[in-house]
Amino acid sequence: MDTLTLTPIAYYRGPFGSKFGLPRQSALAPDIEGRIVFEEPYRVREALRGLEGFQRIWLIWGFHANRPAKGEWQPTVRPPRLGGNTAMGVWATRSPFRPNPLGLSAVELVRVDGLELIVKGADLMDGTPVYDIKPYVAYADAYPESASGFAAAPPQASLQVLIPQDLPFSETQREALAQALSLDPRPAYQRDSGRTYAMPFDGADVFFTVTEDGVLTVTGYSKL
Amino acid sequence: MDTLTLTPIAYYRGPFGSKFGLPRQSALAPDIEGRIVFEEPYRVREALRGLEGFQRIWLIWGFHANRPAKGEWQPTVRPPRLGGNTAMGVWATRSPFRPNPLGLSAVELVRVDGLELIVKGADLMDGTPVYDIKPYVAYADAYPESASGFAAAPPQASLQVLIPQDLPFSETQREALAQALSLDPRPAYQRDSGRTYAMPFDGADVFFTVTEDGVLTVTGYSKL
Repeated sequence: MDTLTLTPIAYYRGPFGSKFGLPRQSALAPDIEGRIVFEEPYRVREALRGLEGFQRIWLIWGFHANRPAKGEWQPTVRPPRLGGNTAMGVWATRSPFRPNPLGLSAVELVRVDGLELIVKGADLMDGTPVYDIKPYVAYADAYPESASGFAAAPPQASLQVLIPQDLPFSETQREALAQALSLDPRPAYQRDSGRTYAMPFDGADVFFTVTEDGVLTVTGYSKL
Repeated sequence: MDTLTLTPIAYYRGPFGSKFGLPRQSALAPDIEGRIVFEEPYRVREALRGLEGFQRIWLIWGFHANRPAKGEWQPTVRPPRLGGNTAMGVWATRSPFRPNPLGLSAVELVRVDGLELIVKGADLMDGTPVYDIKPYVAYADAYPESASGFAAAPPQASLQVLIPQDLPFSETQREALAQALSLDPRPAYQRDSGRTYAMPFDGADVFFTVTEDGVLTVTGYSKL
């Protein structure tokens, strides 16, 4: 029985403390910045040698939130991309609900910062365990013309986002918020204009409303 | 402790019964054909629904051969690409000698064949456990211009391969053999013209010699 037990080599630290608002693929919010913090005994400089030559890295990580109970498994899932109404085979999706709950993301390696990695574009929650890091090798990994089924076109930013200047966000936070919110984090089954939504972000709750004609306004925030 | 125990969902079946001759990245031998055979309880048709729309799939698999003892780990490895003389950080390489011995390969999905998948271009040994299959999604996975450090250029086919017509290989086998052998499977430290090498391939040993000016001739084979 070729079982394999993985131990986290690192954890991802980023602004999204929950699934709400988290981009669903790494390409969707390229400006969201995060940090890879290695665990002992993997927190050593030599293990990073040569990494700065690569623009991107692969993260193989664990869906540690919303994980189905061990052994529970459904052969089909209903991707949010298809409105949640169409069942697709689990192997045809990147759904977290899969027999071995591994995630795979190509993220930008912004820089090596001491013994940590600064990355952009990760679709990982804060605190996600990372099991492996590999260099992105264009000749082996990049197939831009590869037919991609129901996921051929990326989901489009659908909302105009307004973040009042008097809210105390940094420039980096504003960019990340604008990207994530423009993708419309509201559940497909619950999109009420007038309603106030709260999204956990960088240790605060960010409140917003959305009008019927697609304008999202950040109305406030509160530290958690 | 966010450990995660993976169970094989499938096994790869292909022509290479050992590491000798096996291409070191999935892109290097695009015509080598293999088969993904699902394990119970994952061998079900519904789980494949929608997969035929994708031209490529990701395999996340286990380096089950030549695996270091559990817990053994070196922060640097010496990639064959660099002649075995230069130490690179493990996270900057795709070496099998890594804390969590996972492999990652983008392979061509030739077709769904009943409950199995026919794939091309896999750099996996026969009998390799597969832990996850994901659709290749071009907008999230393809970065053809991504700087790729010491692995920027693919290894070039360096040998001219001659396979005599009287050897009883099929056309598919000839193509796969020619591709794999052209990459020069001989160890870098042992390249003697005149010497006969044996490479396990599709249940046989394939014998070959290489001249000093780079012509590889298959001299025979014997069933194992």
